[in-house]
Amino acid sequence: MELKLPYLLKNTNICYYDEQNLYIGNRKIFPFEKSFVACRTSEEIANAIKNMTTQGGGPLQVALTSMCYLAAQMCNNNLEYDFDILNNNMQNIIKSRPTNTTMKRVIEELLLKLHVPMSKSSPEQFRNYVIENVKEIENEENLIYHNMGILGSSLINDGDTILTTCFAEHTLILSLYYAMKEGKKINVLANETRPYFQVARLTAPSMREMGIPVKIISDSMGAHFMRSGEINHYMSASDLVCMDGTVVNKVGTLANAISANYYGIPYTAFSMSPDTTKNNKTEIEMENRDGRELLSVFNHPISEEGIDALYPSFDIIDSELVTNIVTNKGIFSPSKIQENFK
Amino acid sequence: MELKLPYLLKNTNICYYDEQNLYIGNRKIFPFEKSFVACRTSEEIANAIKNMTTQGGGPLQVALTSMCYLAAQMCNNNLEYDFDILNNNMQNIIKSRPTNTTMKRVIEELLLKLHVPMSKSSPEQFRNYVIENVKEIENEENLIYHNMGILGSSLINDGDTILTTCFAEHTLILSLYYAMKEGKKINVLANETRPYFQVARLTAPSMREMGIPVKIISDSMGAHFMRSGEINHYMSASDLVCMDGTVVNKVGTLANAISANYYGIPYTAFSMSPDTTKNNKTEIEMENRDGRELLSVFNHPISEEGIDALYPSFDIIDSELVTNIVTNKGIFSPSKIQENFK
Repeated sequence: MELKLPYLLKNTNICYYDEQNLYIGNRKIFPFEKSFVACRTSEEIANAIKNMTTQGGGPLQVALTSMCYLAAQMCNNNLEYDFDILNNNMQNIIKSRPTNTTMKRVIEELLLKLHVPMSKSSPEQFRNYVIENVKEIENEENLIYHNMGILGSSLINDGDTILTTCFAEHTLILSLYYAMKEGKKINVLANETRPYFQVARLTAPSMREMGIPVKIISDSMGAHFMRSGEINHYMSASDLVCMDGTVVNKVGTLANAISANYYGIPYTAFSMSPDTTKNNKTEIEMENRDGRELLSVFNHPISEEGIDALYPSFDIIDSELVTNIVTNKGIFSPSKIQENFK
Repeated sequence: MELKLPYLLKNTNICYYDEQNLYIGNRKIFPFEKSFVACRTSEEIANAIKNMTTQGGGPLQVALTSMCYLAAQMCNNNLEYDFDILNNNMQNIIKSRPTNTTMKRVIEELLLKLHVPMSKSSPEQFRNYVIENVKEIENEENLIYHNMGILGSSLINDGDTILTTCFAEHTLILSLYYAMKEGKKINVLANETRPYFQVARLTAPSMREMGIPVKIISDSMGAHFMRSGEINHYMSASDLVCMDGTVVNKVGTLANAISANYYGIPYTAFSMSPDTTKNNKTEIEMENRDGRELLSVFNHPISEEGIDALYPSFDIIDSELVTNIVTNKGIFSPSKIQENFK
């Protein structure tokens, strides 16, 4: 079983740039079309992220590539390095996804690192230094993905059927990959994830590319298959993990976590980096999206004109519902996050 | 607040017939079109029910009207009354929806009632007797709906927000109507109910017609709004209630019932007639539909060709998750169903 990451997880399919534009892989229309949205400014990049052109780990990768793109633009236009301009542009991008704070932290650390040594550099030096640092972060991330995949695979038993929600990307996909590599037979049930059908459009095709057996169910069916004994483990990504072990993830995760708890099925969340700045759930900034996003599917209305909908994007999953949090430092129960990260 | 039932609940919009055809109101495309599917034979009627042209309480109303239609056909063709032919035709229709056993029981009782007195009647006498009996059943049902609506309204408090799934029809809608008539302020959150979006297409427009404030959420969001304290009561219809208090209803009901239980929120199911022939959950016949029904929405695929889906239509909600069962005889806890109905 040779490791070949699926189309969607290759960095250049998430985002790339040329002299004119930054191009963001359009996850809103994948797998029906493999196309990119071209952006020129940080405002356009931020809007594309807000509009869900990319999601999950995509915004972080877009932000990293944006720094390279913006540095290259400054260089092309022969502009001196100006921290304030770069910082303002990156702040535009960071603000586009308030609940997932990983992008904010990684980018702000990088800006801080660049600030002093770059203050007197030439445009070329600056561009090269940014590219070098981003490459370093990407390499580190790659090691973390594989490490977390190996940790995650240790939680999966031969014969397990795993339920998952939304698009948990590298960490879950690599966990399943390593489990299968060890000879474990596994199946995945994946709940479609309205309103954007991320499971159906992103997760299931990516798993199929990796040879992972996957079937789609609706968002309403997780509990059904837990009751029938057909699900052994619920696994999801997390957009945020607080120091008290609270997990934030795509809306729908909470209902599955409660059902898993009711039937004694473990719930495991993956977290690249628990947020040391968030002590507990009171400090979470929750993203509420426009309810109208629910009200049409592929441009077809689902209801009568004038009836409203609500769309809270994320669930807060209280720590008592979480069995394991897989991090780069190891697998922890929620109560052990604080002592291992703060 | 004048009572005017919404379009979908008027008997003639569920089903009517003329000399040629039986016409079934097409709930698959409501509210985008108000149209009917024409059927000539019991096989065509059964297929229309299987294809979800109608649902919820619709199949029972279609079966009742079908008996009138078939009797009128026999009369038009000047055929003698033949119990076996009528029975065979009605059995075709009954089998089209195996999990909801109300249709089966009501129709079989009616057939039994017709059998002996009709054995020597003229075609006209037979037709008139069927129509008379069906009218009587419809009038009884109407009284039951209102009685259950008044009972249901007693469970609703001023200021409540009610969560509901799928299309709970008369009993829930009349409960909300009577609650509002008593001056209670209420709101409804309704989870869209994939794959057919019954809430968005049927429930929300019907509630709006009745002046009931309703908002649509996705199937994944019930737990979210229970956690946030925005839901006070979960209410649904039931396709079947067993003597041990087990409730069967549209898939997705279980996840909401478990979440309600977790947050201490009552779950109330409405049942026109608990099934005295089903002692417990081991005797339930569950309908599994083709997973492909999930895989396209308004004729647009949601995933890549060749990826499979599963579609169990119904959930079994174990009695420990059920707070109240509203019946025509009163409101009971699940443990009291047996002694009140058997």
